[in-house]
Amino acid sequence: MGVVVALDESRKPEASVKPLVELTYSDMQQVNALILSKTGSDVEMIPEVAKHLIDSGGKRLRPMLTLAAARMCGYEGDHHVTLSASVEFMHTATLLHDDVVDESDMRRGKQAARMVWGNQASVLVGDFLLGQAFRMMVDAQSMDALEVLSTASTIIAEGEVMQLSAAQSMETTEDDYLAIIRGKTAALFSAACEVGPILAGSQKPIRDAFRSFGMNLGLAFQLIDDALDYGGSQTDLGKNVGDDFFEGKITLPVLLAYRRGNDAEREFWRSAMEADSSDAEALERALALLNKHGAIGDTVARARHYGEIARDALAPLPEDEFKCALLDVVEFCVSRVS
Amino acid sequence: MGVVVALDESRKPEASVKPLVELTYSDMQQVNALILSKTGSDVEMIPEVAKHLIDSGGKRLRPMLTLAAARMCGYEGDHHVTLSASVEFMHTATLLHDDVVDESDMRRGKQAARMVWGNQASVLVGDFLLGQAFRMMVDAQSMDALEVLSTASTIIAEGEVMQLSAAQSMETTEDDYLAIIRGKTAALFSAACEVGPILAGSQKPIRDAFRSFGMNLGLAFQLIDDALDYGGSQTDLGKNVGDDFFEGKITLPVLLAYRRGNDAEREFWRSAMEADSSDAEALERALALLNKHGAIGDTVARARHYGEIARDALAPLPEDEFKCALLDVVEFCVSRVS
Repeated sequence: MGVVVALDESRKPEASVKPLVELTYSDMQQVNALILSKTGSDVEMIPEVAKHLIDSGGKRLRPMLTLAAARMCGYEGDHHVTLSASVEFMHTATLLHDDVVDESDMRRGKQAARMVWGNQASVLVGDFLLGQAFRMMVDAQSMDALEVLSTASTIIAEGEVMQLSAAQSMETTEDDYLAIIRGKTAALFSAACEVGPILAGSQKPIRDAFRSFGMNLGLAFQLIDDALDYGGSQTDLGKNVGDDFFEGKITLPVLLAYRRGNDAEREFWRSAMEADSSDAEALERALALLNKHGAIGDTVARARHYGEIARDALAPLPEDEFKCALLDVVEFCVSRVS
Repeated sequence: MGVVVALDESRKPEASVKPLVELTYSDMQQVNALILSKTGSDVEMIPEVAKHLIDSGGKRLRPMLTLAAARMCGYEGDHHVTLSASVEFMHTATLLHDDVVDESDMRRGKQAARMVWGNQASVLVGDFLLGQAFRMMVDAQSMDALEVLSTASTIIAEGEVMQLSAAQSMETTEDDYLAIIRGKTAALFSAACEVGPILAGSQKPIRDAFRSFGMNLGLAFQLIDDALDYGGSQTDLGKNVGDDFFEGKITLPVLLAYRRGNDAEREFWRSAMEADSSDAEALERALALLNKHGAIGDTVARARHYGEIARDALAPLPEDEFKCALLDVVEFCVSRVS
């Protein structure tokens, strides 16, 4: 039931996250051990809830970005492991709170924590993980890294609140939508990358390059995620086609189809998204309209645009194995539409 | 309908927070201005929600403690203002999340934010304020203060989760309950006090004294709060007699009456608190049982015990106007049962 997307000629089907996974493998072992130890608490429910989410097989892309960025900039200490775990905890805390905010039933193909332990535990364990994230940042002893990550945490929350305000309006512009995903997704990618050169004591242009790389990779990642929701295979993300649609979550494909649609189509979108009255039949119609207006393909094209900016952000840096791995991640992200 | 409490002979009815308010007045002006500026965001809903809570007339006891502790230790810079605002933001974030967790309708005599803007906004604006709190800690440039406050944030969350787990059981022991309030209330009082000497670069025994003072003051404060819920006047706290009772929130007065009660009384408490089936008639019976077993008076006595420890924590420090004001706060806290 997916939407057919015309593949760009430049697509390299072989691109994958594998080189990044291999380069960061031994560091990630340490990160995983640290994550496990920092979910520990005498309060039984905390490790239970945390492990439910942490074990559920996220790709851990963000912490790998921190590790690779630090190593690429010549960092030789251990604090990149600490900050990498910190980044993953910030991400996990956000997921726990998001599920409460979105009233989601599923997360990564498993029951959402809130369905097992309740909204209350999800809010509080999220708070606990956020606190642990900050404690680990303190352990890493870098004020600059602390500033970047604490600022990211406010920007993430701002993005989420913006989404909450915009959630009920089909009149959200593409610019509004970009501001939302810049906050809720790209800010953490950006911070995850920037703390690498910070630890390494790199010059400002290098820090700026990584920040920009992360920001644009994050935008591309989110836009592809949005496209996949209307066309990816279920196994990809533990999501089903139409999850966003049924939750009434307004994303770029829908905004494009709405803006390009006629009066009757717009009326359909308003009723489906704003009034939250969507069923399987409505999803069929939505997919047909997205196809008619090329909304998925153009969302992917937008994602490629940000992917290109991410590539160019790293262009001045030497061509080493880390850079190749990071560029492969960009290509993988924008190519994962099946 | 309050419970009659026999007043301790040593009670000084004139004790108040007024000396502390006066000593910190000009610093608090700066704190209030900083709080206002740091709730600012282009995302309209954030300042709205934050101001709803911040303007609602909390006593701002915690930020005043930070200011007084720093000054008492001879600190002459400006970072105590920053950390003081940070402490208040941590507190405000906790309140926003608590209301969601407790499903409260009221807060400080006003509608809870979640009743006006929804649970979602309360969770996310809480996250935003927590992020801002950490950014301000970074501004204050003290790694030790960051460590103390970030650790407090995890302990607060642990305390709340503990309360969640214990909430449905009348078999909670007094020790369990103390562990809960140590986390959810006293940890922030303690951290608020400890960062004062940290900023001033005081020796470890001074830091320890303030940490212990704050911890025990916090315990006393919470126990009196629990007692007031069954006997204070409504204007005191924006709470009504029996709020905790109707929410099924198990506190020390109830635990004492339960442990001291006969089988029929215990059955009553279990049905009222665990099954959450309480009405006005049940509250009448609860108040009668609390009276019968002296549970309120003994809760106040426990609070006085922690108040005494708080006093002695500061005993080695010179007798100046700040110390007098802090000791008055202790006396005020344990004497506010009407």
